[in-house]
Parts: sequence; structure tokens; C-alpha cells
Amino acid sequence: MEIRDLGEFGLIDRLTKILKIEDSSVVVGFGDDCSCVRISDQLVLFTSDVQIEGRHFVKALISPQDLGWRVVSVNVSDVVACGGKPRWGFISLAVPPELEFEYIEQVYKGMEEACQYYKMDIIGGNTSSSEIIIFDLFLTGITDRFVPRSGAKEGDYILLSGYTGLSRAGMELLQMKKDSYEDFENRLIKAHTKPVARTDLADRIKKFASSCIDVSDGLAGDLSHITHMSRVKAVLHREKLPVSPDLKIFCTKYKKDCLDYMLFGGEDYQLVFTVKEKHLSQFSDCFVIGKVEKGSGIFLKEGDNIKKISEKGYQHI
Amino acid sequence: MEIRDLGEFGLIDRLTKILKIEDSSVVVGFGDDCSCVRISDQLVLFTSDVQIEGRHFVKALISPQDLGWRVVSVNVSDVVACGGKPRWGFISLAVPPELEFEYIEQVYKGMEEACQYYKMDIIGGNTSSSEIIIFDLFLTGITDRFVPRSGAKEGDYILLSGYTGLSRAGMELLQMKKDSYEDFENRLIKAHTKPVARTDLADRIKKFASSCIDVSDGLAGDLSHITHMSRVKAVLHREKLPVSPDLKIFCTKYKKDCLDYMLFGGEDYQLVFTVKEKHLSQFSDCFVIGKVEKGSGIFLKEGDNIKKISEKGYQHI
Ligand SMILES: Nc1ncnc2c1ncn2[C@@H]1O[C@H](COP(=O)(O)OP(=O)(O)O)[C@@H](O)[C@H]1O
Ligand SMILES: Nc1ncnc2c1ncn2[C@@H]1O[C@H](COP(=O)(O)OP(=O)(O)O)[C@@H](O)[C@H]1O
Ligand SMILES: Cc1ncc(C[n+]2csc(CCOP(=O)(O)OP(=O)(O)O)c2C)c(N)n1
Ligand SMILES: Cc1ncc(C[n+]2csc(CCOP(=O)(O)OP(=O)(O)O)c2C)c(N)n1
Repeated sequence: MEIRDLGEFGLIDRLTKILKIEDSSVVVGFGDDCSCVRISDQLVLFTSDVQIEGRHFVKALISPQDLGWRVVSVNVSDVVACGGKPRWGFISLAVPPELEFEYIEQVYKGMEEACQYYKMDIIGGNTSSSEIIIFDLFLTGITDRFVPRSGAKEGDYILLSGYTGLSRAGMELLQMKKDSYEDFENRLIKAHTKPVARTDLADRIKKFASSCIDVSDGLAGDLSHITHMSRVKAVLHREKLPVSPDLKIFCTKYKKDCLDYMLFGGEDYQLVFTVKEKHLSQFSDCFVIGKVEKGSGIFLKEGDNIKKISEKGYQHI
Repeated sequence: MEIRDLGEFGLIDRLTKILKIEDSSVVVGFGDDCSCVRISDQLVLFTSDVQIEGRHFVKALISPQDLGWRVVSVNVSDVVACGGKPRWGFISLAVPPELEFEYIEQVYKGMEEACQYYKMDIIGGNTSSSEIIIFDLFLTGITDRFVPRSGAKEGDYILLSGYTGLSRAGMELLQMKKDSYEDFENRLIKAHTKPVARTDLADRIKKFASSCIDVSDGLAGDLSHITHMSRVKAVLHREKLPVSPDLKIFCTKYKKDCLDYMLFGGEDYQLVFTVKEKHLSQFSDCFVIGKVEKGSGIFLKEGDNIKKISEKGYQHI
């Protein structure tokens, strides 16, 4: 059987069954945005995300400095989604020997810029050669409460930390390789090349969210991890889904369906999370987009009309 | 300037200067086998080592189960070299979608076999697609004393935990693609495909070694990291360097220079370390191969003859 027949999640499912976790200090193993171990009185989070040339970025379409920012941000996002603060990164690098040094230097400047911004440090790494450029970052974070994908409860509200769909629009704009871009187009491109992880929400997520995930593969796909793991149903309200003004102009100009971008566009690195009604007031800067109900699946409500939506997200395989 | 003009260590040197470590809980940053942070009352070690198809292994020449064992072992080796015990691994995987699932399954069985052997767990991972097979393992360990590369002192003895040069001989045998191999050849091949990290020495290294490094790039090259960082000179005694009987037969049969394999062959994952005279008796199962003196460089003493030897080790770039 080829790996492609299993898909990314089918593959992960089978592989993680082979690995037995025996250590009782492991609080969370496979199945969440981060793994978690207890060291003395601390909960320590582990995650990793890679940027591979041709799969996550095209060298000609993103500046090396933004690439460095990006590999840090996508990892920080997973730590924040578990209620943590990012602390120590470890960077594993593989590069073609004929690549210009100045390119990698700029990537490191971007990583350092992001480390300053997120108040964390990269403290070590590993170096190899390869035919393509690979930046694999491992990130450790700290929390005192692990916020899981599995904690959503019937009656909870579903919140979203910001607009979605921008990054996919930005990527498509880049791929058009236009000679010049309008202002709104440049903003969408920046949402793709320089996403910002929501560390500003980390404390409140830790204190008040019953479940959380970051939107890397698309809102519907990532929310479906929450509904599956929490064994609940999500009902989203069409009119409450936030539409970015820039995305609206983009969709009009290029005759695209905004909803498709908002639900299925990946790499926005916003957070989708659930909270009890009594904590709603903590998140006045976020969008309340729906409610958790008994059942399963994700539904979209538009007026009196309710329809089930696809749970497909971006799959790497 | 191309990266190849800098070489691996020139590149690392320049890159790590860009990254500023500001967190005072970081006990060891760049420059050793592991990085180290203090979490509550624990010293936590970080390391990572990758196996990239074509660079670290050739798919047709190593079984997937051995490859899984190997990626765990090469990481455990770095943790042990710092006096630590391996605890939690995080595996980042990139594979071609058309690869057979059964191949990856066997790699995971090999990783799990190694985890059982070394008493550690892999607790999470990441999955991407790529054109070549990449297993990047990030490993954390625990210690209560960090053994650095920089601790060797004048008068210390230099010890080696076992034979070196076997792995390179094994790799060359594999590359010959012979129809059949003799017994001693199969043992050399196994030293290459299934190296064993010296966790059996971890406790004693932690308690008694003044400096330590694992032999991944070759004895001379790795020992030179100790002499540079400790600002000392190493004098090795030719007749005390342990020659594996299998390597001796190999060198006779294929007309090779044993010493060249022993000093410059990589991937044996033995430990080279220094200890004070009063602790020598703790390591009766290791080879005393020389002494630390005032000065710099690595020298080989044969009878009354002393000559400086090259400090070159395997470089990835
Ligand atoms: N690309 C990199 N970026 C940052 N630090 C690196 C990188 N590569 C290696 N390092 C750091 O440089 C030091 C030496 O690395 P290396 O010689 O590869 O160690 P080892 O041979 O034990 O794996 C280590 O502290 C490691 O963390
Ligand atoms: N190749 C792998 N081996 C082991 N565990 C993996 C692998 N890939 C992913 N995982 C684990 O599966 C879970 C889901 O991963 P994933 O959906 O990729 O998370 P995210 O999208 O937040 O990066 C996580 O617990 C992760 O640690
Ligand atoms: C060249 C290229 N092709 C496709 C994409 C789209 N893409 C790549 S990864 C990804 C999803 C996010 O993946 P990752 O950052 O690996 O996070 P994870 O799924 O592991 O959380 C998407 C939508 C892209 N950014 N660049
Ligand atoms: C196909 C192939 N080419 C070359 C080698 C030789 N080789 C690859 S890596 C390496 C040194 C060890 O490298 P790594 O495990 O990355 O450890 P590090 O140097 O990072 O400690 C050697 C001698 C090999 N094993 N396979």
C-alpha cells in the first residue's frame, strides 16, 4: 500500500499505534497540537513544524527573512493553542552546499526577529546538506494548564481569533507573479508570508478556553479535530463568520467564493477555540462564530437553513 | 559566497552569532553536543540529528528497521555525551507519497525497539511530504550535571569507550554490493547499520568525566572539539589505540590503513572523554588512549616519535 492511499491522518494514526508511551510523566502524547510532559512542577510542551522548499514555500516567492519569521511563527502557534508560552527552539537545517550564505543569513535574521517578538530563544540546532532547503524547528513551551482539542462541551461558544482565508488568497496572488500588486493584494500576500501567532491571547486561552486548535490546515478541517476529539457537533453561523475587507475585494476582483477561502484556506494561524458562556466577556476582541451542540460534524446555519459542511482540510500527503 | 566555502563549522559559527540567547534559564547554548536549560530543579538537554536519504543512508543498503534504530541511537549518543539520560523524543517525518507504507511501518518498529532498549519514549511528531525520505528526531534528556566539551584539564587521561573505524569499514563493505559477505564483514556492516549508543556509561560519565563528546564525525575530528573548547593539547599513544580484530582483518584483506579508519572514520557513536587520574579505576572497561597536556592540537606518540595529526572530521557541508 502506498502512503498516499492512507492520507496524512491515516498515516499518523497507524504510525502512532506502533509507538508505546510508557513514561508516566507524559501528560499528553499523540493527538493534540503539542505533546506535554511534567518536569518537576512545570508542564512542558513540545511541537515541531517544518518548512520544506516546494511544499511549504517557493524560494522565489518569499523573502528569506520572512521564511525565518514564518518557521518560528507556525511553531509558536501550536504552543499558544495549548495555552502555553514559547520558550526554547532547536533548529534543524538542511541546505544545498551551493546555496548563497547570504540567503541563510537572512533566514536566521528573520528567525531572530521572530524570537525577539515572541520572547523566546533558539538555543541550538543541527546542520546537514540536501538538495532542497529544509528548516525544521522544534519548539518547547511552558504552561500550567494544558488546553486540549478534546475539551469542548455542549453549550460552549465557538470563537475565532481573527480573519481566515487571507493566507490562501495571498499565496494565490504570489503564484500569479504579477508585475505589480494593489495595496489590498500586498496585505493579503503579507498575511501569507508573515503570519503572526497569537501570543497575545495565550494567557486568556490558558485560563478560559475549554478547547483550542490553531488554523493551519483550514478552519473547517482544524475545527473538525476539536469536534472529533470532543465528540460534539459544531454549528457555525454564516453571518457571524468574519469576512476580511481585503478578502472581499479579492473575491470580487477574481470571482472567487469568499466562504470557500474562509472555511478551507489554510495557514492563517488564527486560533479557533471554545469557551463557556460565563467567560465570553474575556474575549471581546475575538469573533463568536457558533456554538457547540450534542452530536457530531460541522454545520453552517444561514437563516433557517442548516447544512453540513465538508471537514476537509489541507493534507500534506 | 556559497555555503560550501564556509564548510559546516564555518557556517554554524556565523549562524549562531545571529541568534541571541537572552533567557537566563539557558545553561548551555550553542557549542556542545546538547543545549541545556534549567526547568525547576532539573537540567534538561536538547539535541537533534537527522537521517536524510542519500546523505546519511542509502535506502537499498539499510533495512528500514535498522534505519529507525539508527535515528534514535545517534540522538541518544549526544545526550549520553553530556552526562544525560534520554527521555522524550519528537519525530519529524517527510516522505514521498508513493513510498510503500510498510517501509515506514518498519522504520517505526525500529524506533520503538530502540526506545525500549534506551528506556525512552517518542511522544509526538510531524508529517510532511517530500521527494526524499527524511527522519529528523529531536530528543530531550535529563541530567543533574552537564558534562561539557570544554572541561578537559592538563594531566587528565583521555579515554575511549570502544573501537572506532568499524562503521566506515561497514559502510564501504555495503557500497561494494557483494553477493555474499564473510562473518567479520557482516559484523562491520552491523556496526554501521545498527550502532549502539553507550547509555551503559551515562551515569559514570556524569559523575566522573571532566569532558566528553561522542564520535560521530571521527575520533580525531571530534576530539579536536574537546581540545579547542578546553584549550588543551591531546597526546594519543599509538599502541594504546584499540584495534578491532574485525577491522584488522578488513584492512589486511582490502589493503587499507587501519589507523586511518580508527582516527578518521565516523559514525561509531563511541564516547571519547577525559577523567582525572583518581577516577581512572571507574572505567576499567574503557581504553585509556592518551593524556591531556598544556598546548593545542592532537598528537600521536609512537615510541619516541611524536607527530601532529590532522584534526579533520566528516563535514556535512
Ligand atoms: N544550523 C544550526 N543552527 C544553530 N545552531 C546549530 C546549527 N547546527 C549546529 N548548531 C549548534 O552547534 C553546536 C555544534 O553542533 P554539532 O557539531 O553538529 O554537534 P553534534 O556533532 O554533536 O551534533 C551545537 O551546539 C548545535 O546545537
Ligand atoms: N510522523 C509522526 N509520528 C508520530 N506522531 C506524529 C507524526 N505526525 C504527527 N504526529 C502527532 O499527531 C498529532 C497530530 O499532528 P498534526 O495534526 O500534524 O498536528 P498539527 O497540525 O497541530 O501540527 C500530534 O500529536 C503529533 O505529535
Ligand atoms: C509551495 C506551497 N504549496 C502549498 C502550500 C499550502 N500549504 C502548505 S503547508 C499547509 C498547511 C499547514 O501546514 P504546516 O505548517 O505543516 O502545519 P501543520 O499542518 O503541521 O499544523 C498549506 C495550506 C504552500 N504554502 N506552499
Ligand atoms: C550515503 C552516506 N554518505 C555518507 C555517509 C557518512 N556520514 C554521513 S553523516 C556522518 C557523520 C555523522 O553525522 P550525524 O549523524 O549527522 O551527526 P553529527 O555530525 O550531527 O553529530 C558520516 C560519516 C553515510 N553514512 N551515508
